[in-house]
Amino acid sequence: MLKDADRVFLEEKFLSKFDFSGEDREKVIKNCKNKFMKKDEILYQDNEGYYGYIIIKNGILRAYVTSNTLKEITIFRVKSGEECILSSNYTTTSFGKELNFQIEECCEFLFIPMQIYQELKEKYPSVTNHTLKLISKKFSSVIEVIEQALFLPLSDRIRIFLEQNCKNKTIKITHEQLANHLGSAREAISRTLKDMEKSGEIERKRGFITILSSDFKRN
Amino acid sequence: MLKDADRVFLEEKFLSKFDFSGEDREKVIKNCKNKFMKKDEILYQDNEGYYGYIIIKNGILRAYVTSNTLKEITIFRVKSGEECILSSNYTTTSFGKELNFQIEECCEFLFIPMQIYQELKEKYPSVTNHTLKLISKKFSSVIEVIEQALFLPLSDRIRIFLEQNCKNKTIKITHEQLANHLGSAREAISRTLKDMEKSGEIERKRGFITILSSDFKRN
Repeated sequence: MLKDADRVFLEEKFLSKFDFSGEDREKVIKNCKNKFMKKDEILYQDNEGYYGYIIIKNGILRAYVTSNTLKEITIFRVKSGEECILSSNYTTTSFGKELNFQIEECCEFLFIPMQIYQELKEKYPSVTNHTLKLISKKFSSVIEVIEQALFLPLSDRIRIFLEQNCKNKTIKITHEQLANHLGSAREAISRTLKDMEKSGEIERKRGFITILSSDFKRN
Repeated sequence: MLKDADRVFLEEKFLSKFDFSGEDREKVIKNCKNKFMKKDEILYQDNEGYYGYIIIKNGILRAYVTSNTLKEITIFRVKSGEECILSSNYTTTSFGKELNFQIEECCEFLFIPMQIYQELKEKYPSVTNHTLKLISKKFSSVIEVIEQALFLPLSDRIRIFLEQNCKNKTIKITHEQLANHLGSAREAISRTLKDMEKSGEIERKRGFITILSSDFKRN
């Protein structure tokens, strides 16, 4: 059973977008669950328990692609207030098959099981439209990842990542993690960070990276 | 006005998928155009004349991403009998903003203007569903491109490309073109092809590449 605060959150972030019947609203509320997952936990592809519509309350969920050799690259993140669809049945809904999902920062989220979401999608064209918009937006993210990964120098990609993910100009991250976010090799990351530190652009200390100069302009 | 053969093609590849009213069927037929474009022509993003729903009769349309430095990578191809949506208004429909489209092989295609397609999408949930499936499928292609571009050795990527695009084991392609398909540098492509020729895997002659050994298994 959802707490009052979660009901309000669900209303604001989901129910209010659609013109559901009273009965369908109740069905969503009754089946929606509040879940909590710890940092670094992985939403396994074969764990159907997590197929459905997810709305993040707090924390960050990271979608990434991985290779046989365990190299990774982050495709997009889902942050507080944002939503995502996880599905095994790619052709009828959305992500899941090709993407892996990992909790990047401790996550509290609301979860609507796939079966309920599918029923809504079949009944309300507005839900299909909403799904289409979500996927189109993610499609843009993927294209952006390709552009950056293939066409930008690693130093620029590190700058973009640091700027997008720092808090008060600082970020706690290992070279290994940064390599996984950017689909690069740890050695290349370490070398580039060293160069950036030498040139006075950043400072590295106890696992933290701090941006010192901010004259990097993204295109 | 569509020729009879084109009407049959439109019926088979588009109209028969949906339960349109007689009036809407006629509207599609009336507004659908037969177009022809030559090899290497580009469907410019700012040329709204080409925003709409495209069904390829013959030829190949290539979707690619390009960088400031004019490097390219192919994201997907649309071949005979396949369809694609080109749009400026990414959030409501589909591709266009981030992707460039080029005629890879002389193309004859049917074209339904965006306005007509949008009207159908608003009126028929089945059209929105169809759009969702199209985008989901392309989403898979993009993820596959990322996986290959980042995680596979260039030699394997060349092998996959040759196998997917050869006719009778042979393909006519320059090193420059191959570099653009794979988002790689021409020099790297030339070097790798030379190695593959040395090892007896391929033969290069007058702009053609022929696959000699076929023991390459994709994963």
